Amino acid sequence: MLVWRGMTPIRTDIQASLQTYLETHDLHAFREIEYKGVIFFRGEFHESDSCVPESYLQAQLGSWSNLTIPKRIALFVSTLSHCAIAILEEWRMRRLGGEVVCVISNHEDLRPLVEGYGVPFYYIPTANVAQSEKRQLQVLRELHVEVIVLARYMQMLSEEFVGRYTQQIINIHHSLLPAFVGAAPYEKAYERGVKLVGATAHYVTEGMDEGEIIEQQAGVVEDGGTAEHYKVLNHPIEAKVLLAALHQHLQERIFIYDGRTIRL
Amino acid sequence: MLVWRGMTPIRTDIQASLQTYLETHDLHAFREIEYKGVIFFRGEFHESDSCVPESYLQAQLGSWSNLTIPKRIALFVSTLSHCAIAILEEWRMRRLGGEVVCVISNHEDLRPLVEGYGVPFYYIPTANVAQSEKRQLQVLRELHVEVIVLARYMQMLSEEFVGRYTQQIINIHHSLLPAFVGAAPYEKAYERGVKLVGATAHYVTEGMDEGEIIEQQAGVVEDGGTAEHYKVLNHPIEAKVLLAALHQHLQERIFIYDGRTIRL
Amino acid sequence: MLVWRGMTPIRTDIQASLQTYLETHDLHAFREIEYKGVIFFRGEFHESDSCVPESYLQAQLGSWSNLTIPKRIALFVSTLSHCAIAILEEWRMRRLGGEVVCVISNHEDLRPLVEGYGVPFYYIPTANVAQSEKRQLQVLRELHVEVIVLARYMQMLSEEFVGRYTQQIINIHHSLLPAFVGAAPYEKAYERGVKLVGATAHYVTEGMDEGEIIEQQAGVVEDGGTAEHYKVLNHPIEAKVLLAALHQHLQERIFIYDGRTIRL
Amino acid sequence: MLVWRGMTPIRTDIQASLQTYLETHDLHAFREIEYKGVIFFRGEFHESDSCVPESYLQAQLGSWSNLTIPKRIALFVSTLSHCAIAILEEWRMRRLGGEVVCVISNHEDLRPLVEGYGVPFYYIPTANVAQSEKRQLQVLRELHVEVIVLARYMQMLSEEFVGRYTQQIINIHHSLLPAFVGAAPYEKAYERGVKLVGATAHYVTEGMDEGEIIEQQAGVVEDGGTAEHYKVLNHPIEAKVLLAALHQHLQERIFIYDGRTIRL
Repeated sequence: MLVWRGMTPIRTDIQASLQTYLETHDLHAFREIEYKGVIFFRGEFHESDSCVPESYLQAQLGSWSNLTIPKRIALFVSTLSHCAIAILEEWRMRRLGGEVVCVISNHEDLRPLVEGYGVPFYYIPTANVAQSEKRQLQVLRELHVEVIVLARYMQMLSEEFVGRYTQQIINIHHSLLPAFVGAAPYEKAYERGVKLVGATAHYVTEGMDEGEIIEQQAGVVEDGGTAEHYKVLNHPIEAKVLLAALHQHLQERIFIYDGRTIRL
Repeated sequence: MLVWRGMTPIRTDIQASLQTYLETHDLHAFREIEYKGVIFFRGEFHESDSCVPESYLQAQLGSWSNLTIPKRIALFVSTLSHCAIAILEEWRMRRLGGEVVCVISNHEDLRPLVEGYGVPFYYIPTANVAQSEKRQLQVLRELHVEVIVLARYMQMLSEEFVGRYTQQIINIHHSLLPAFVGAAPYEKAYERGVKLVGATAHYVTEGMDEGEIIEQQAGVVEDGGTAEHYKVLNHPIEAKVLLAALHQHLQERIFIYDGRTIRL
Repeated sequence: MLVWRGMTPIRTDIQASLQTYLETHDLHAFREIEYKGVIFFRGEFHESDSCVPESYLQAQLGSWSNLTIPKRIALFVSTLSHCAIAILEEWRMRRLGGEVVCVISNHEDLRPLVEGYGVPFYYIPTANVAQSEKRQLQVLRELHVEVIVLARYMQMLSEEFVGRYTQQIINIHHSLLPAFVGAAPYEKAYERGVKLVGATAHYVTEGMDEGEIIEQQAGVVEDGGTAEHYKVLNHPIEAKVLLAALHQHLQERIFIYDGRTIRL
Repeated sequence: MLVWRGMTPIRTDIQASLQTYLETHDLHAFREIEYKGVIFFRGEFHESDSCVPESYLQAQLGSWSNLTIPKRIALFVSTLSHCAIAILEEWRMRRLGGEVVCVISNHEDLRPLVEGYGVPFYYIPTANVAQSEKRQLQVLRELHVEVIVLARYMQMLSEEFVGRYTQQIINIHHSLLPAFVGAAPYEKAYERGVKLVGATAHYVTEGMDEGEIIEQQAGVVEDGGTAEHYKVLNHPIEAKVLLAALHQHLQERIFIYDGRTIRL
């Protein structure tokens, strides 16, 4: 599938381009939405023999990409497996639309699980952040990684690191942002007595848990639920949310604008 | 159904009482839960001919009530109907376990709908808050109201009013508290780009939207959703959440402790 | 919003038409899907001053319609209110995209509720089916009804009646079809011990509960649920499902093909 | 946690026993439900030093068990991993309340994944059913297996095999039973055009897909969904349903009566 997407304040420009593209490619799906005076658009075209012509790639409006070329993904994990396994399972079933090229962890715990999937596992301790990030960046470069997924990594990345992969790092936070930012969200949620747990996948920016939200889902807390129930109930939600966010990123569905995402 | 409920730091006290009650009444359901060193308990007993004996009513541990005696409910509304209609429908189907004795509103809009259900409608304008509350309290007293439901009433009640009906006033807020307190929660949610809408039913206390949370539910925002979609999607959720909270209140399932509710 | 939709085995025909239409109208959304060698397509265009030109209306491929012209709807009810009220509420909030022009019932029970919404209520007893259908058809013709919604009407319509409103009559069945066809689906579901209840909105055809399925939703049966719980739990689901099906019908999203619907 | 459970037509017998047990054990939770004149009950008691006394174990009414003693579980798989991995993950997180002692498969595909969890993997081809079942039964006996989970095993077991493990074998079927029994349920569901997919966990009996239903969940089919979408959407549901059913079985929540289950 070929995707053409972009944003512009002028709707007629989109229509003119669409008309041109229809001469050589069949439209499968198209949507546009207006937000604060800007029109965001995304179209899916069937691939033809000629694939994306040079002239399209130089399009002044929006950009073209070919979804059949899988993006290269690195998973960052710590000791919890649920989020990483959900992604590895999807990848193993050939449903991810991306290639998991490595798992990087500051603990050895998940090595046997990850290697069971045939994915290289890099153990990089984080006692010294500067050194560990240097080593991480080296691995990412060598493997030509395009998307980094923090699958309950539980470590902050430096500004410099984040700056190198702008809008390419996705994190999962175990609360319904903007509620319960930062540490111990389960405990905070339990203390406040909220009746929903949930998780938020977002792009990583410099501020903690302040990146643009990609995906959120919630689960109902049962009557009489304890703090432990909040956690048990939330783990599968975290896995689902992170996986759904990654799918949308890989399908080029997400626009970032004015501190939020718009998904088409 | 007879309900016995209470809280105590000493679990064995509960067991001793339970044993006594089992001599004359059949237990249908029982649960206890510990929170911060206190044990909350709630038991349901089948009614017998003797109903609740005097000796039970004077129980030092917890309290007894008879759910077959319906509590008397007043709905406060403004111009939006969805929450009020959900409660009136449930009541009409004889599923509420409570009696809707009046609807009070600062607008005439909903009169024909409410009167269609055969419920008295009181139009009390709120231009002068002191006068309108005086009139409202008069109606509530005359009709022996025990539970007040703010079904998208959109007006603040005075401290004095709230103080007279402590833990008897339930409000619906159209966001997932603690996120988006106060005015315009749809707009705030849309601006932040959250991917879930939702609603929160809570007891009314003096602070705005800070009362103890009784019930919350969420709904998924679709890709490309506009601000209007947030509202359209949220209305049925608000109705469901408020109704569910009212049910739990009427079934004596809710304990208030340390700034939150515990539901059994 | 203008909608252009149709089906064809030749994808390139769609693209050629699309290109033509883009000359005068802005595309808002488009999707196509292939099912058994046929391509179904649906496009939404922004309205322009010229609205739908004559030349479009004579399009050989598919058909054009203008969603801003509301379709005229009749509700058929018996004694249960939940489905009818959900539709009346949506209509009152101006969210339905259609006009409820009458409610027809074989009982007087719902008259006050319906008249509370300002909608004419026709009491047509069904002791004699031939006579009652004659009277019903007369009302439908006089009011130029285009869509008939059986909102828990609980009566069979004759072949002749159904034949006059092919693909224009929507029914709600209180089970997840194809399971539990016909009478007493709650009881059958409870006996079988299924752990989900649910409802199905479908077009009415001559066979009972065999029409093409438009929408289905399910609800989880709680542990220890009784037969009564199945019903209580299902009523709001029925209302939601019927409303969702009606929305899709009014938005011209539904294609009927080979015994099923395809929704775009 | 100690569990006491059983069924009887006489409610007062339950109450008398309860009273006795309360002398030495603290009740945590209790529920009873009547179905066709029989009362099913289940109580949870806190463990005390004395654990379950001899006299309780000989109780004429119902039976006692100790949930802290984990049941021994065997997973039967073929080539699909999603259901098995969900159970292995839960077990790895020490949330299962049971011990996965082996995985038995007729294919080698899942060996590396399973061994990554440190669980023994037995490859037993099924070309000759009599021989393979003999070998399977030998493994089950040697490992003292108490619960068998068919995690998308895709093979029928013989009557004799099933008879040896009555009410101890749980299967997952990839449709919402009683709809779409037998082979190819995705395809049947797609052909019929149902708008919900779903899965059913049930006890294995001699009839195909006719065992007592333990758990069911459903997922909404999106507009324009293809047959492939039905499958992709259903896999995570299958994993959730099977895991939830296993949890309920291990917690001794399920009664089988009159062709269905009752869960408390």
